[in-house]
Amino acid sequence: MSDVLNKLKWRYATKKMDPSKAVPQDKVDRILEAIRLSATSSGLQPYQVIVVTNPELRAQIKPVAWNQEQITDCSHLLVFAAWDNYTPERINAMFDLVNEERGFKNEGWEAYRQMLLANYPNRDAETNFQHAARQAYIGLGSALIAAAEEEVDSTPMEGFDPAKVDAILKLRERGLRSVILLPLGYRASEGDWLVNLKKVRRPSDEFIIEMK
Amino acid sequence: MSDVLNKLKWRYATKKMDPSKAVPQDKVDRILEAIRLSATSSGLQPYQVIVVTNPELRAQIKPVAWNQEQITDCSHLLVFAAWDNYTPERINAMFDLVNEERGFKNEGWEAYRQMLLANYPNRDAETNFQHAARQAYIGLGSALIAAAEEEVDSTPMEGFDPAKVDAILKLRERGLRSVILLPLGYRASEGDWLVNLKKVRRPSDEFIIEMK
Repeated sequence: MSDVLNKLKWRYATKKMDPSKAVPQDKVDRILEAIRLSATSSGLQPYQVIVVTNPELRAQIKPVAWNQEQITDCSHLLVFAAWDNYTPERINAMFDLVNEERGFKNEGWEAYRQMLLANYPNRDAETNFQHAARQAYIGLGSALIAAAEEEVDSTPMEGFDPAKVDAILKLRERGLRSVILLPLGYRASEGDWLVNLKKVRRPSDEFIIEMK
Repeated sequence: MSDVLNKLKWRYATKKMDPSKAVPQDKVDRILEAIRLSATSSGLQPYQVIVVTNPELRAQIKPVAWNQEQITDCSHLLVFAAWDNYTPERINAMFDLVNEERGFKNEGWEAYRQMLLANYPNRDAETNFQHAARQAYIGLGSALIAAAEEEVDSTPMEGFDPAKVDAILKLRERGLRSVILLPLGYRASEGDWLVNLKKVRRPSDEFIIEMK
């Protein structure tokens, strides 16, 4: 059994967290680093991760997230927030950073920059946001495995009102829109209806199609 | 350094694969299993993975994917294909499978089923497809880490014409739409412009926002 498979089997969407247990900062940092290192389309990293530890903010988010208790019982609430649009400034900033870090300009890479500049900013903002939002889900995939490696529990959540979370965290002013919530914490010893239930997935022969 | 971070640092979007080297089936199987075990919204797993080894099909896909050579140089081309819509049949099939595997009906879970049935099928197909497509990206995040664990190279690709890939693989007839391509193979010893370049990500203090 591979490490990754073991981690994926260990994790589950924790339904009840113990509010008395906080995730140590070094574990949170490694989970965030896994997200930061994750692949994104054209390497643009078109999202940010908000780490909400502030209790008042989390108390405000909870009622606009179906009152899910993990929002306030977790120690760190991650909010994946995607760019509201692709702009020339955002695209150029990332390509400039790449050139700066690599110490030279690559001709093919510069041609690719121009292709993106000619295309992305001309698309409507909603199309661009939807594309950016998808990238955040790659980071979520990494985060779930990284959290399991740290034996930290987590609960990926789409069940919230994004516009209200954006308003509470003032994300629109930053050009961001909330996409996914991921509370990090530790499962409670009691009260989690899911913890002992079997993880169910469609069988491989239904999930995978081979075209030989 | 954690295992997951090491794997994320090891991987890169391989630009040139060696067509003479095939990924052993047991490695492919573990990568597919990582995708299958990945989280999805409400556990619906609203996508499938097509494993295209057929050379004719891959030769047809290449020209509708910017002629990226990895499509034909890889040994296994994974195509993540999302459900074109959420239907009562698809939702019920997954909830029924969960009940069957767990051996009992959970009242809260059944109420949740009814909530989904009352909502998802009434939304337009495009909204549902976009939601399903996002879930495939969680699986992509897992696949990239799982491939790295197997020391298998991979190249996540959005650069293709989904409608044409759907037609080549007859995905619409299965109620599926292609979302991401992921060639699996081994890097060529020469001709990969990216292999020796530094992986660049925005610094943590620009990628992460703390709200304490």
